[in-house]
Amino acid sequence: MNIRALVHVIGLILMAVSAAVGVSSLVALWYGDGDFVPLLVSTAIPMVVGFAAYRSTRLDRELRVREGYAVVSLAWLAVGIAGAVPYLLAHTVSSPVSALFESVSGFTTTGATIFEELEKLPHGILFWRSLTQWLGGMGIIVLGIAILPYLGVGGMQLFRAEVPGPTPERLQPRIAQTAKLLWIVYAGLTAAQVLFYLLGGVGLFDAVAHAFTTLSTGGFSPHTASLAAFSPYIQYVTIVFMLLAGINFAHHYRALTGRPGVYARDPEFRFYLAVLGGAFVVVLVTVWLGGSYATLGFERAFRDSLFHVVSITTTTGYVSHDYELWPFGAQFLLLLLMFVGGMSGSTGGGMKVVRLNILMRHGFAELRKSINPRAVIVTRVGRRAIREDVLLNVLAFVLLYLSLFALGVLVLALLGHDLATAAGAAAAAIGNIGPGLGKVGAVDHYGWMDPGSHIVLVFLMLVGRLEIFTVLLLFHPDMWRSAHFART
Amino acid sequence: MNIRALVHVIGLILMAVSAAVGVSSLVALWYGDGDFVPLLVSTAIPMVVGFAAYRSTRLDRELRVREGYAVVSLAWLAVGIAGAVPYLLAHTVSSPVSALFESVSGFTTTGATIFEELEKLPHGILFWRSLTQWLGGMGIIVLGIAILPYLGVGGMQLFRAEVPGPTPERLQPRIAQTAKLLWIVYAGLTAAQVLFYLLGGVGLFDAVAHAFTTLSTGGFSPHTASLAAFSPYIQYVTIVFMLLAGINFAHHYRALTGRPGVYARDPEFRFYLAVLGGAFVVVLVTVWLGGSYATLGFERAFRDSLFHVVSITTTTGYVSHDYELWPFGAQFLLLLLMFVGGMSGSTGGGMKVVRLNILMRHGFAELRKSINPRAVIVTRVGRRAIREDVLLNVLAFVLLYLSLFALGVLVLALLGHDLATAAGAAAAAIGNIGPGLGKVGAVDHYGWMDPGSHIVLVFLMLVGRLEIFTVLLLFHPDMWRSAHFART
Repeated sequence: MNIRALVHVIGLILMAVSAAVGVSSLVALWYGDGDFVPLLVSTAIPMVVGFAAYRSTRLDRELRVREGYAVVSLAWLAVGIAGAVPYLLAHTVSSPVSALFESVSGFTTTGATIFEELEKLPHGILFWRSLTQWLGGMGIIVLGIAILPYLGVGGMQLFRAEVPGPTPERLQPRIAQTAKLLWIVYAGLTAAQVLFYLLGGVGLFDAVAHAFTTLSTGGFSPHTASLAAFSPYIQYVTIVFMLLAGINFAHHYRALTGRPGVYARDPEFRFYLAVLGGAFVVVLVTVWLGGSYATLGFERAFRDSLFHVVSITTTTGYVSHDYELWPFGAQFLLLLLMFVGGMSGSTGGGMKVVRLNILMRHGFAELRKSINPRAVIVTRVGRRAIREDVLLNVLAFVLLYLSLFALGVLVLALLGHDLATAAGAAAAAIGNIGPGLGKVGAVDHYGWMDPGSHIVLVFLMLVGRLEIFTVLLLFHPDMWRSAHFART
Repeated sequence: MNIRALVHVIGLILMAVSAAVGVSSLVALWYGDGDFVPLLVSTAIPMVVGFAAYRSTRLDRELRVREGYAVVSLAWLAVGIAGAVPYLLAHTVSSPVSALFESVSGFTTTGATIFEELEKLPHGILFWRSLTQWLGGMGIIVLGIAILPYLGVGGMQLFRAEVPGPTPERLQPRIAQTAKLLWIVYAGLTAAQVLFYLLGGVGLFDAVAHAFTTLSTGGFSPHTASLAAFSPYIQYVTIVFMLLAGINFAHHYRALTGRPGVYARDPEFRFYLAVLGGAFVVVLVTVWLGGSYATLGFERAFRDSLFHVVSITTTTGYVSHDYELWPFGAQFLLLLLMFVGGMSGSTGGGMKVVRLNILMRHGFAELRKSINPRAVIVTRVGRRAIREDVLLNVLAFVLLYLSLFALGVLVLALLGHDLATAAGAAAAAIGNIGPGLGKVGAVDHYGWMDPGSHIVLVFLMLVGRLEIFTVLLLFHPDMWRSAHFART
């Protein structure tokens, strides 16, 4: 393990975080809520640490696969720690663990908050909070489309690899170039959402803050009421942009460069629409028959159902209504949708649509094999056959994901939480959604939890965001062994 | 599909059920509780139906694989229906669905009951109730060790198949012979348990009823308080026999014929002990620290923890204490244990220990593969490499199992149940355990549920008991197609 190279790269990333805190300090200066100085100090700390780390080390050769994993995991952790400093220095939180929770929840685009009343926070801190998600979303796009495929992990290579080994989505041959193109799409969609918000009469601050946290499927809102504080028009606009954020950004790039047919040709996209559509119909029927919308009207039931199915499935986590007032069946369906997540190459979390699609096809293939034991039956998604090693990897991923979820619920239950709270919090954390069920439901927050529960959820957020393997590998002895595995 | 052969076999099985009801009617005659006539009529019905079915059809050739599946599923359903008749005719239940629930819960060795107060039931009915589980257990042993491996399903072939295709556990070359030997072991262990009960001062009726429902990992007790109605000695005896019932019966046969080393050499057995031991320690620490045992004493905490870890993991479902008084963390661990189940070739339900062991090993193998992408890494259990097609089958099984569980919870939630009740009931049904959590917890019953929920749970019991595939295949169009797949 080349520790110096690791420190070098993380130092560089910390300097970038410092620059982002610096931008937030300018927002603080503009609004004058008294958080300028804390944010300025928070700019200086990662800059000094990052610069020292960067200058005292160097990248003497390309990173190896193992080092790639370590960089990704440790960078996300380092960024989470650096991002916690503003909350602490601005005296908005009572403990470092709470600050870390809010920061990691931001950078992992989870959106679970420890704040009971967001309107009390100064503007600079609120801006920083939204910005962490936007930056996290950027990181995820590049990670998912340009980095993880080189390491042989993640959803993106599943359809493309015809030969064993990592094969990235080659929008452009080089990572830096790919990243730039995707970021242009990401920033462009963000700008478009800001425009639609402004047209709906929303102020610039709110428009930017929500665009930052929609395109990243983050879900932090500067308002305690979340999207319930806005008009139906704004809610529909938000639904559209959440949907876009849950789609592979490589498709958006292709569509914007004149190939809109790319969506319809992707079996993952078709499956994504089918899941959303099916869940929407079940939720709508359930909440309408539940009766609580008799006075609110059908349009409201339609909008709330669509909003939450999209918000939860894309792992954004915005709320337009207290869904815990719904019949419990509809709530449980939302809990199941937390496991679906967005498409591969999107900013969404969860297990990813592509994996679910592969799983379902494999289940059917195994049933057919049982009936026709001597027939050669191949698992296909669309017209493409899925290789056995890819299948084994997807199945292992899903089972590790579910095992970590179950383990998370167990630890939370041992820490004293009830089933709905523990299951909701663990699913919302590992899937990077935000709100859960029970005491961390639609209109609740996570501030009341003990530090132990916060640490468990921080771990789940990171492990879910970084596609499980990336983080778990840090605990594998082979990662740190130098002799035998030196060449891999 | 050879429907006539199907009807022929099921007719034969119905006549066997009739004989068993006949034995129960003799018990009724002895005790004179007024259920002799209903049981006599219940003996006649399956005899007439079975005889008519048997005589009007014939088995003109060996069953094909598809027909094997259909026989197994439909026989279990037919037996469940025939077994419901005594409850109905003796006026012990209010509806046919309740009677079907109790009967299927018996034959699948689940042990979930609709009866609020068992002491009110006549002895003949109570005997029949216990006997359904004993017969179900017999069926499962033969199914798991002698029939399913021929069809290429189930846990037993996993370690043994060196070449593709079904390879049964060959205790003796022929199914009938294998079945006889295993039934001798099963009956012998049952007799041993009766003896230990009698030595502890338990009456003959209770001793037999409990032995029937322990060795089958069924869990029906003639007492509303279940095993809490008995002495610590009896509870320890029950723990031992539950443990034995969760072990592969082929091992017991070998051990009894002079090869006791067979247990220690089986990696599934070692994993089984590790799971039980680990869970026991966590539960004991949690309930002891929870404080409610401060007055009851440590021995009681030790005994209750061991009892419920063994009772739930082996999928028996007896209760020695209201575990819903425990800290919720310990309860949730019991919920997780519901998914483990017994060893393959045992009477236990759940996903089976062997599959969990394979899964865990596969997870580790995939992690190592990520670090060393070019290394050839094989998933091993013990010293044996697991073939990729076996791995794919196990992974599909587990995911289908979990999907059906989640779907069951969803439907129960839509029918109005809370999360703990829905999750507990679905896990307890598909895993063939019995008691769940929430309103179907340790000291509750299932009688209050609506018929819709009962039907859902009956389906889950059957699908769980028959290793998922067997039942799901009935819904696959290939099963009933005659032209293209005729030769398989």
